[in-house]
Amino acid sequence: MTASTQTPEMHPQRWGDPALAAPLPESARGLVDLAFGVHERPAVEQVTLPPCGLSDDLLAELREILGEEHVLADDATRRLRTRGKSTPDLLLARAGDLSDAPDVVVRPADHDEVAALLAWATRAGVAVVPFGGGTCVTGGLVARREGFAGVVSLDLVRLKRLIAVDRESMTATLEPGLRGPEAEALLAAEGLTIGHYPQSFEYATIGGFAATRSSGQSSAGYGRFDALVVALRVATPVGELRLGHAPASAAGPDLRQLVLGSEGAFGVITEVTVRVRKAPAVRVYEGWRWPSFAAGAAAVRRLVQAGLQPTVLRLSDEAETAINLADPGAIGGSDAAGCLMLVGHEGDRAAVDARRTAVEALLTGLGGIPLGEEPGRSWAHGRFAAPYLRDAMLDAGVLVETLESATFWSGLERLHADVRNALEASLGQPVMVLAHISHVYETGCSLYFTVAAPEGEEPLARWRAAKAAATDAMVAAGATITHHHAVGTDHRPWLADEIGELGVAVLRAVKRELDPAGVLNPGVLVP
Amino acid sequence: MTASTQTPEMHPQRWGDPALAAPLPESARGLVDLAFGVHERPAVEQVTLPPCGLSDDLLAELREILGEEHVLADDATRRLRTRGKSTPDLLLARAGDLSDAPDVVVRPADHDEVAALLAWATRAGVAVVPFGGGTCVTGGLVARREGFAGVVSLDLVRLKRLIAVDRESMTATLEPGLRGPEAEALLAAEGLTIGHYPQSFEYATIGGFAATRSSGQSSAGYGRFDALVVALRVATPVGELRLGHAPASAAGPDLRQLVLGSEGAFGVITEVTVRVRKAPAVRVYEGWRWPSFAAGAAAVRRLVQAGLQPTVLRLSDEAETAINLADPGAIGGSDAAGCLMLVGHEGDRAAVDARRTAVEALLTGLGGIPLGEEPGRSWAHGRFAAPYLRDAMLDAGVLVETLESATFWSGLERLHADVRNALEASLGQPVMVLAHISHVYETGCSLYFTVAAPEGEEPLARWRAAKAAATDAMVAAGATITHHHAVGTDHRPWLADEIGELGVAVLRAVKRELDPAGVLNPGVLVP
Repeated sequence: MTASTQTPEMHPQRWGDPALAAPLPESARGLVDLAFGVHERPAVEQVTLPPCGLSDDLLAELREILGEEHVLADDATRRLRTRGKSTPDLLLARAGDLSDAPDVVVRPADHDEVAALLAWATRAGVAVVPFGGGTCVTGGLVARREGFAGVVSLDLVRLKRLIAVDRESMTATLEPGLRGPEAEALLAAEGLTIGHYPQSFEYATIGGFAATRSSGQSSAGYGRFDALVVALRVATPVGELRLGHAPASAAGPDLRQLVLGSEGAFGVITEVTVRVRKAPAVRVYEGWRWPSFAAGAAAVRRLVQAGLQPTVLRLSDEAETAINLADPGAIGGSDAAGCLMLVGHEGDRAAVDARRTAVEALLTGLGGIPLGEEPGRSWAHGRFAAPYLRDAMLDAGVLVETLESATFWSGLERLHADVRNALEASLGQPVMVLAHISHVYETGCSLYFTVAAPEGEEPLARWRAAKAAATDAMVAAGATITHHHAVGTDHRPWLADEIGELGVAVLRAVKRELDPAGVLNPGVLVP
Repeated sequence: MTASTQTPEMHPQRWGDPALAAPLPESARGLVDLAFGVHERPAVEQVTLPPCGLSDDLLAELREILGEEHVLADDATRRLRTRGKSTPDLLLARAGDLSDAPDVVVRPADHDEVAALLAWATRAGVAVVPFGGGTCVTGGLVARREGFAGVVSLDLVRLKRLIAVDRESMTATLEPGLRGPEAEALLAAEGLTIGHYPQSFEYATIGGFAATRSSGQSSAGYGRFDALVVALRVATPVGELRLGHAPASAAGPDLRQLVLGSEGAFGVITEVTVRVRKAPAVRVYEGWRWPSFAAGAAAVRRLVQAGLQPTVLRLSDEAETAINLADPGAIGGSDAAGCLMLVGHEGDRAAVDARRTAVEALLTGLGGIPLGEEPGRSWAHGRFAAPYLRDAMLDAGVLVETLESATFWSGLERLHADVRNALEASLGQPVMVLAHISHVYETGCSLYFTVAAPEGEEPLARWRAAKAAATDAMVAAGATITHHHAVGTDHRPWLADEIGELGVAVLRAVKRELDPAGVLNPGVLVP
């Protein structure tokens, strides 16, 4: 089966479906006082791209391999494949800079055409940037151009099949170009779900989820995407990898875990087999209030360590709760005290009831105040909307961006304080730093920050300094530099802090083996 | 804290504590009709070792690095560090062949001494075999000798500290030389447990669990050992790896998963941080009977896919049930029909009661017949005893060995039939092939085979042919070549079937980077 839906292309300077772009909600007007003013910006059609740098001979070879209609060098297509959707990406595009445009966009049909393309790129010395949903927020779609005969955007838009469903084993094999809703629609027809709902869900793809170790809002119940993957097929310039013969194995190191998180630098994922679940009959999301972030975090930890984690578990800190960020449609419209926790249960009626009862007993015993289903409904309604709000804020001259980390429970308080302090110190007043626990584990959790500040005269430089200060603070606190946004180019300077110089050397050795000419997403991931 | 208990050394020709060796139980006498006769065997003291091949200069250098008393070249010590405990290992030792003895056994004190030793070995061109509990059953302690100035057994017996406990994060950092009971005793003093109980538990070590991706009898509840590891410290000839800053990360490929399963070929694990749990207040193990293996397997699958997996879940097939293998103390003493399932619950009283009620409801609804706690008690009593029984069978001229695999649920029936058929065809009649599901996942399970046949004139050759036929059958069925016994040298010929030639090339590239002189366990893991 192949996906039949068609998600619209995202505007090069904005997030999502252009039809859904909206002005800043009235309730958020107060936040805009942060802004000093709005920069003048050219319309995207007026932004000139560098000319396609690929020679006519190489373009002809590409057309030979993939067919005329799947080799696209027009400016409109190239604009749509330029960079990802981080705030720096948007600031550049809004400032009229699309200089990182690929020379050409190619659309292979299947694994064999991907493999042929990589072999060609290796011979021709052309850099290849795999492109799924284009939702990357860490610069993973900007390849180094120096030393190459050109840059090709390898658009996976034609690899959209549901290849197999194994109902007994509860697995499904999917092609990488399927966007979140497309994959879920194909599985829903079988009564199944992956249950992976990151904020980028509407645009991001199965291949991207795997290549970046994505984690969804329901990860407490369904697991991170990397934990759902049981098998992978990968095309590399030197051949094919097929990994995963069983749910678990002791046949040496787990090479699936080298491909997960490889961000297109080791190969192109062409098939992903994931664990699937029965589509839930019941979904209940409800709110709880805690007197402080520390009290709420302790409750989250107790829940998870008691084996009672619900499907969704999120805890906003005081600042985030006060401006109601969990409900982007009503942002700024509340002035709630304490900290908002969102607890979601999905499954059969009996399982949901049993889990809900146990969770309620524990949370009530710890002093949580139940707020009913209204906060949960608001959150569920707006769960993919935040990036639209960011566009509206950027339109109003407010710099908005998110960043995230994860640590063990004993390090949470320090991580929360240190990253917030680093951002505040770097950006100066006025600034808003909001945070929530977004993903939970028995041994720790992730921490997701949202930052808003006036753009100022040099918004990009302002943000880059703040991001560096925040990442330095994560490293100093012993936390990971990213829990679910991958390395890309933005986090690359800190990768050696994460895995050591020797770890980086191991990645380089793997890359040399699989990509001897270094054409795969050069400059991304591997320092 | 350091472990204070002292497990006795294992006899070079037998399993476990010599004081616990026992003759074949009366109940098992009937099985011995399989045997044609008993081979004459020399006592171990009469077995000559090859002389220590390490030059006096190199021995002097070793003594300089580690101290006189931690460099042991006497025959008694070398015998104790020769090979592991597979049936082929025992057959060779019983036949008077200890030709794989290391030249010298060294006992570094800590990470720094391990690192110094590896740097020395690299300079000197000496092969290094890390040694933990010596329980390996796949030839992982037999390094290639050709091309090296000698072979050193790196005994981790002095690295036995519990380095840290983080009660908030529920993690513990342990040194690799701690045996299972030593680690559990140190944690029990804090009211904690790892919950990792493989059959080798009494001898195997924390480092070995990690290096071989061990899986315990309670893996349904606590998880495989590789799933429990959150951080690792590794000494390599070219430097140190410190991996794991959070429960999960998207900072590129997960290099912890390259170290787990690396079997000493990439480095020596010197610290392991694992998830720990509260020591359970209640342990209940009970039996269930199913009319057939297929019916029982379907029930296992339903349990796990419903999210109701107990702490222990094991299902014997008809043959294994009939001879009562789940209770080695009474083996052959029963003649039970159908298939025995063992279901164990551990935890707080309330959690155990709730889980037990839900499991009972599901199993009863599927037609399972509850057998009460007696079968569970017998299993728990004998859970580490099977290797002693193997010694008694070998004493009586019966070739006994185990092997295991794992596959997705849809492949279970074929895997069960094909491996059994391959073993029966290779060994001829009389032969006994028994199997059980030993580890379960939502998407599949492991299958653990026990084989008994007359030794015949050439027991080693007989077994190697049977093992090859069984492994070929696993590969043909699309299953993994090992779920929890690692690769060693015995599974190495099939590793390319598991991960492809390109996967093997990746392992070689990693090894070249971390171990440029190739001195780490040469010939093990990497083909």
